[in-house]
Amino acid sequence: MFKLSRMLPLTSTSRHRLLEVLSSRKVEVGDRLSHSAGISTATNNYAAKGYASDRIFAPYTVYKGKAAFSLIPCLPTFTKLNSGTVVVDRRGSIMMTFMHSIGERKYDWEKRQRFALSATEVGSLITMGAQDSCDFFHDPSMLSSNAGQVRKSLSIKPHANGYFVSLTVVNNLLNTNDYFSVPVTTAEFAVMKTACSFALPHIMGWDQITNQQSRGIDDLQAKGDSKVSDLEWEK
Amino acid sequence: MFKLSRMLPLTSTSRHRLLEVLSSRKVEVGDRLSHSAGISTATNNYAAKGYASDRIFAPYTVYKGKAAFSLIPCLPTFTKLNSGTVVVDRRGSIMMTFMHSIGERKYDWEKRQRFALSATEVGSLITMGAQDSCDFFHDPSMLSSNAGQVRKSLSIKPHANGYFVSLTVVNNLLNTNDYFSVPVTTAEFAVMKTACSFALPHIMGWDQITNQQSRGIDDLQAKGDSKVSDLEWEK
Amino acid sequence: MFKLSRMLPLTSTSRHRLLEVLSSRKVEVGDRLSHSAGISTATNNYAAKGYASDRIFAPYTVYKGKAAFSLIPCLPTFTKLNSGTVVVDRRGSIMMTFMHSIGERKYDWEKRQRFALSATEVGSLITMGAQDSCDFFHDPSMLSSNAGQVRKSLSIKPHANGYFVSLTVVNNLLNTNDYFSVPVTTAEFAVMKTACSFALPHIMGWDQITNQQSRGIDDLQAKGDSKVSDLEWEK
Amino acid sequence: MFKLSRMLPLTSTSRHRLLEVLSSRKVEVGDRLSHSAGISTATNNYAAKGYASDRIFAPYTVYKGKAAFSLIPCLPTFTKLNSGTVVVDRRGSIMMTFMHSIGERKYDWEKRQRFALSATEVGSLITMGAQDSCDFFHDPSMLSSNAGQVRKSLSIKPHANGYFVSLTVVNNLLNTNDYFSVPVTTAEFAVMKTACSFALPHIMGWDQITNQQSRGIDDLQAKGDSKVSDLEWEK
Repeated sequence: MFKLSRMLPLTSTSRHRLLEVLSSRKVEVGDRLSHSAGISTATNNYAAKGYASDRIFAPYTVYKGKAAFSLIPCLPTFTKLNSGTVVVDRRGSIMMTFMHSIGERKYDWEKRQRFALSATEVGSLITMGAQDSCDFFHDPSMLSSNAGQVRKSLSIKPHANGYFVSLTVVNNLLNTNDYFSVPVTTAEFAVMKTACSFALPHIMGWDQITNQQSRGIDDLQAKGDSKVSDLEWEK
Repeated sequence: MFKLSRMLPLTSTSRHRLLEVLSSRKVEVGDRLSHSAGISTATNNYAAKGYASDRIFAPYTVYKGKAAFSLIPCLPTFTKLNSGTVVVDRRGSIMMTFMHSIGERKYDWEKRQRFALSATEVGSLITMGAQDSCDFFHDPSMLSSNAGQVRKSLSIKPHANGYFVSLTVVNNLLNTNDYFSVPVTTAEFAVMKTACSFALPHIMGWDQITNQQSRGIDDLQAKGDSKVSDLEWEK
Repeated sequence: MFKLSRMLPLTSTSRHRLLEVLSSRKVEVGDRLSHSAGISTATNNYAAKGYASDRIFAPYTVYKGKAAFSLIPCLPTFTKLNSGTVVVDRRGSIMMTFMHSIGERKYDWEKRQRFALSATEVGSLITMGAQDSCDFFHDPSMLSSNAGQVRKSLSIKPHANGYFVSLTVVNNLLNTNDYFSVPVTTAEFAVMKTACSFALPHIMGWDQITNQQSRGIDDLQAKGDSKVSDLEWEK
Repeated sequence: MFKLSRMLPLTSTSRHRLLEVLSSRKVEVGDRLSHSAGISTATNNYAAKGYASDRIFAPYTVYKGKAAFSLIPCLPTFTKLNSGTVVVDRRGSIMMTFMHSIGERKYDWEKRQRFALSATEVGSLITMGAQDSCDFFHDPSMLSSNAGQVRKSLSIKPHANGYFVSLTVVNNLLNTNDYFSVPVTTAEFAVMKTACSFALPHIMGWDQITNQQSRGIDDLQAKGDSKVSDLEWEK
């Protein structure tokens, strides 16, 4: 049996102040992207259109004594090829953001660290049983000469009533070593699993495939019959 | 093996009369909010626009001999910050409403009590196994001098073929003590779990994140290539 | 290990002929409803608007040697009360239609029988384990003097690799007794469970609740702050 | 415990080149369909309208040492009968495409083979436990004189940490025998299951049924009461 008392993790005022900070930072990121758009080739992808895919900010956040982390889906961006087909440009992810606690109900946004779960990593998370654990490793310079200089690792390990979710970021270039660990209850992990299962087809772009038909079905006109073709046998 | 006979819990006429009562009350609530909107700052959030998020009334109700309760999703409200980013203003919930039976197929709407399940509490509910139980405690005055004077507790406990869902409301200020208990079958609990799993991303606001792209993808124009950026490594 | 060979249950031509029959019958039903609309009060509910909620016909059908059955979601209809609130008028269901085999790849549509699974009955179905069984009983005259004269019972019982889905319809008024039994594989039952889980929030009308916000969020205007209110404590 | 290192399976440039190839081929298929549309009767179904249902290309691909395969939902096409009812014309599927490896990060698109999972086969896949296996057999000429000359079989068998997904295509007419085998991790299979569960109602066309109401509910006008009818008892 588990008990759960609800306590607002932040007062309304301080929460809005935090959100205001988040949103103004978001805008900086967006501006930086927009300014650089003039000298890059990335002028037509969806994300560049006003950074709209980050316009709504609704993270699921787990606040605990020493640290906090939040989850939010980042949709894929799409590019239209010269042939007219729309393909995924930047893959979608579930973005995790970790912050250290720096006082009662205060978290250090400046020193936050991020970890973007890929579709397959989300697959690991949503399939975890109560006794399972998993580890993910990311290296931003993997294919360059700096490979191994910066390493991020996310670890999810079971405890009596839930999991420890921990992030380690080792940066040999800056000589820094950051560690966050957040205990998560079974109930909080259930929210993470359900929300990530919901988001998975969206970060894969499959919702765009299944949505496109809705726009066309009203245009159908009456007909007598039609040939059934089997796509599987076409080349 | 479980058996299940379908019986309309209310006749069509009495059901419509109940709904009419519910709806006129809803309007009162809406009016009260609208009137106060003139003297509060809450003029731009979505809920204030005609109380539209409660316009459609489709609860899932479990009617039993001594009491009944209904579930309905309450969507979050959003606020646009000065920066332009839209953030969650009031969190969403699954609203439970309990009523005592006051005769055959009659329930006392006047003395109803409500309990709003948060996203994490919904996570507890949807992850419950057949032998699990859980308890949630809410205190509306938690951070004020009246803390502990009013307490609501919701309890879900297993029985042979389902669960007992019980609500206790102790109000020391009014010197009242209210108790509701509704036996729920495995099938009814399965509906609750499936419907709450469906609603969870919506009360978190994640559907607003995943929906926004659909509005933009038609505007894509053909392009040659684009730089892939990795959001995880941006600050 | 289970094996599964795909065989088109009906040739393309005969399938279209069957669908044409189904659709023309549908239209009869629709017409009958429309004609009677003039003398009933049911002029404003959604179903009366051209019977649109049945316009698209995409059942999931299990064809077997002696009988077949199909599943299709029937959406709820809604009514707007004088207060302006929209409430469920006719509850949604998953409609099952059973037909006897009358030759190779031929099924007797004339003598079909229907059974409408309620939300709670769908809850039973989607929560069934491999060894579970369940029975549902419907009596159309339950609250009238004819109670017990006509009885429909649906039974789902496990076998080695799936379930037997059987419908019995006893009509003492017409002195008829109809029985259908269709063996369903584990894979077919998985489709039924997944499709019914998908449809459940829709037949409950919860998709209408969660959809309505999408229409309003674009209208938000920038603001400074807002009061957080807690619906749970309102009356 | 399972570990998972993320490695981009293709560099950004080579990936775009592959996608460009895919998309130009897609267009060929589309063109072929469009050209033949003039001499077939298939002029009114949705797929013929610019091949729109394949316009967005977002497969989930598992790249391994010897071979790769991708999954993508193929929506059903619909036809409007003379009666006005819209029915499924070509059933939807999850299309699997297998390719042999022909060098580091290179796969042979020319000799790819496809296998279209039906709704029931998807039901098998999403219901598989960790120790389950399954086999599907397709014969394109099943009802013709060439029955048995070409056979495709897909096999999914468990290994220590996931499954082997293998496709065999035996073509006695061309005297060819093709075999692909791709080891899939538990995490990758979880993505496949979640994405296929999401897609299943869409390839069945049930999303078209549940979506159609959204278009009409805004038109409701206030009314007093209405008769509740029970579709189950209508013929």
